[in-house]
Amino acid sequence: MMISQTGELKLLERIRSAFASIDARVAVPIGDDAAVFSVDQNKIVVTTDLMSEAVHFDYAYTTCYQVGYKLVSSNVSDIYAMGGTPGYLFLDMAMVKEHTDHDFDEFLRGVAESARIYGVGVLGGDISSSLHSDFFAATIVGTVERPVTRAGANVGDRIFLSGTVGDAAAGLAFLKDLNRSIPLEHESGDHDLDADIARSVRKHLLPVAVNPARICGQCNAMIDISDGLLLDMSRICEQSGVGAVLYEEKIPVSSGTKKIASQLGVNELEFAIAGGEDYELLVVSEGNGTEDGIEIGKIVENGLFLVDSAGREMPVEPRGYTHFT
Amino acid sequence: MMISQTGELKLLERIRSAFASIDARVAVPIGDDAAVFSVDQNKIVVTTDLMSEAVHFDYAYTTCYQVGYKLVSSNVSDIYAMGGTPGYLFLDMAMVKEHTDHDFDEFLRGVAESARIYGVGVLGGDISSSLHSDFFAATIVGTVERPVTRAGANVGDRIFLSGTVGDAAAGLAFLKDLNRSIPLEHESGDHDLDADIARSVRKHLLPVAVNPARICGQCNAMIDISDGLLLDMSRICEQSGVGAVLYEEKIPVSSGTKKIASQLGVNELEFAIAGGEDYELLVVSEGNGTEDGIEIGKIVENGLFLVDSAGREMPVEPRGYTHFT
Repeated sequence: MMISQTGELKLLERIRSAFASIDARVAVPIGDDAAVFSVDQNKIVVTTDLMSEAVHFDYAYTTCYQVGYKLVSSNVSDIYAMGGTPGYLFLDMAMVKEHTDHDFDEFLRGVAESARIYGVGVLGGDISSSLHSDFFAATIVGTVERPVTRAGANVGDRIFLSGTVGDAAAGLAFLKDLNRSIPLEHESGDHDLDADIARSVRKHLLPVAVNPARICGQCNAMIDISDGLLLDMSRICEQSGVGAVLYEEKIPVSSGTKKIASQLGVNELEFAIAGGEDYELLVVSEGNGTEDGIEIGKIVENGLFLVDSAGREMPVEPRGYTHFT
Repeated sequence: MMISQTGELKLLERIRSAFASIDARVAVPIGDDAAVFSVDQNKIVVTTDLMSEAVHFDYAYTTCYQVGYKLVSSNVSDIYAMGGTPGYLFLDMAMVKEHTDHDFDEFLRGVAESARIYGVGVLGGDISSSLHSDFFAATIVGTVERPVTRAGANVGDRIFLSGTVGDAAAGLAFLKDLNRSIPLEHESGDHDLDADIARSVRKHLLPVAVNPARICGQCNAMIDISDGLLLDMSRICEQSGVGAVLYEEKIPVSSGTKKIASQLGVNELEFAIAGGEDYELLVVSEGNGTEDGIEIGKIVENGLFLVDSAGREMPVEPRGYTHFT
């Protein structure tokens, strides 16, 4: 069978099974936003994320700066989603030889400026040429005192989001429709986008990871929205052995995403519940310490449900972005 | 200018300059085999290495198992070359959808079996599809008590190798000539290679990183041979501010590599001094504690010289493998 028929979720299971081990120093193994292990009294948290050209980004509407910037944010987001503090970043880059020096420098500048936001130092890496398309990976090593996994949600807990969802997906749809890159990284703002739409597009091109400090004081479970609200919610449910009810009307959608949905004739809710790469935090808490979170639902015994504006509770599939399908 | 004209060494300089920083917790920054930073009283060592299809390997004569196995060894070798102990590995894989499940599983098996040799746990990763070719990266996080950098060589120090060099390059040349893969990972040994030649080919396909414990008791500088003896020697010289004299006759070359050189009509010394990916350790020491090392030269004030069998000292260029050229 080809791996395209097998699908990402089954491939991930095979990876977990291939590398399963019992190691007392490992606090959080493979399968969460990041892994955690102990070195003496310290807990070290590590995550890695890759970006593959034509799968994760398209130079038709993305600049090299934006690719570098996003690579860092997506990794930091995983560290934040474990309740950790990012420390140092390690960078792998394989680029086709046809890139210009300017492309190369712009990519590095995107990495460096994004890393600076989070106080992350770039300490090492590896480079190579690539034959057909670009490939980048970053690994961040940090520290964490109390890891917040996907497995701690309890029935009765409340569910919060750190911000609007669907923006990155709407921004991507807008860019695909436009089919040219927008250098939003330039402070001069040399673009003619509507300000609301620009915010959604920026969330796709130049996302900023959310530090959970103000959202999650006493949270039981956490994940960052990288593959879509429903899919990432289902991951918390699966690993916590619970279910979830989300209220459509409470799911925050930005004005920019509403405008893009309307322009493209798409249902805005679809962006919000199935769109990936928002890098907002999805937080499950008993209720305290989440004053900056937006409450969108509650943890139940099992199942995954959306409640519509008329109060009807409908079971939903955990759809979102997966590779190899 | 295109990056192919700029060349790897200049690109690396730009990376160092883009990410330069002053951070008291960093003991060894970008530019050595691995980076070292402190978390409280512990020193954490991290390295990352990538393998890009058609650049680092070719499925015409490499199995998926071998790619996974080598990816781990090349990373462990960097940790060993810092005097560190590898702990956990993080894996990025982007594979084209046309691979079979068997390819996928064999790659994982290669990673898992290689990791087991070194006591390394695979704790996380990221996967993606890729459009045209495969790309893999691994990052290893470990610990180190006393980092051995490339910068500690002193005039008068002796230079040692942990084993023969040129085998991986000879093995690769042999495989390219043969143009089919050899499943050396199978214990049944279902191949008809000469045993000596098989050892050289194995060094290319299934290298095993060298633990410096028995070679380097009190060494001043160390690097693993990943890009070629002369090039990696020149890196120690450059970072230590010294020169080196190597004796051709003392450079250890295996019987298999001699046979391959003879079969292909190539000078065996060329494999030995400029061939990459041997993952032997090149160690500079005042002399004590290197009983298992093979002495090949000495550190001098400046320059890089080869002494031939007639005792003539010739200056040499630090040639070896670089990308983007």
